[in-house]
Amino acid sequence: MTPPRTQVTIVEGPIVPAVSAPSAGAGGLLVFEGFVRELEPREGEPTARIEALNYQAYEPMAQTMIARVGDELIERHKLLGLTVIHSRGRVPVGGCSIRVVIASRHRKEALAAMDQFIDRLKQDVPIWKEPVWRS
Amino acid sequence: MTPPRTQVTIVEGPIVPAVSAPSAGAGGLLVFEGFVRELEPREGEPTARIEALNYQAYEPMAQTMIARVGDELIERHKLLGLTVIHSRGRVPVGGCSIRVVIASRHRKEALAAMDQFIDRLKQDVPIWKEPVWRS
Repeated sequence: MTPPRTQVTIVEGPIVPAVSAPSAGAGGLLVFEGFVRELEPREGEPTARIEALNYQAYEPMAQTMIARVGDELIERHKLLGLTVIHSRGRVPVGGCSIRVVIASRHRKEALAAMDQFIDRLKQDVPIWKEPVWRS
Repeated sequence: MTPPRTQVTIVEGPIVPAVSAPSAGAGGLLVFEGFVRELEPREGEPTARIEALNYQAYEPMAQTMIARVGDELIERHKLLGLTVIHSRGRVPVGGCSIRVVIASRHRKEALAAMDQFIDRLKQDVPIWKEPVWRS
């Protein structure tokens, strides 16, 4: 397999934002999307193929805890906005199960906050994923 | 001004990706968009208001150098894809002037690569921004 190559395009004037444009003071918008991969760790085997993940969330506790972690990071990094969408139920391989959007004055704080937010989400928030193994 | 609050939504099933869905093995997609801010440093004043930035790129050298930096980071972080769109010409305040999309197996390498890529872009690539001061 040949490795991927960088694709570069230079366009005239402003670029249409992928998500909606952030608030006036924002210099950067960072979007992370997580996708379901084909292989998951399985007891007795390093990895095994799945068809999908089933996400179970204990709502509204999950909502409250995500918001608490987010608000803490907004304050710590002086973010201008933090938006999270998370799936529940079945998400097939290749499907997107989470989107986090962070608006900030500069990119450094958005990158740091994104990393910390997803670590905390995985550790602290009551959302579980159950693999649907491919038979 | 009240600080922003985290917005949380939990949805049933997969989320429609903001950009196009990445290749099969990708676990994460990271998108950075940079926007023109209202204030720029100016001689003799800490900052002054602008109407726009005028980007001048020395193409195709800019293209070649962006691709070189990108390919180096693809290799270093084993990225699955890196796409860059950069503006030339006039981009008004609030407009988006750069989008970088990185696909990777896991998010950590995407975050590291994004940070390094933008640092290198600012240092090494012949794209200049000229402020259009607000009179």
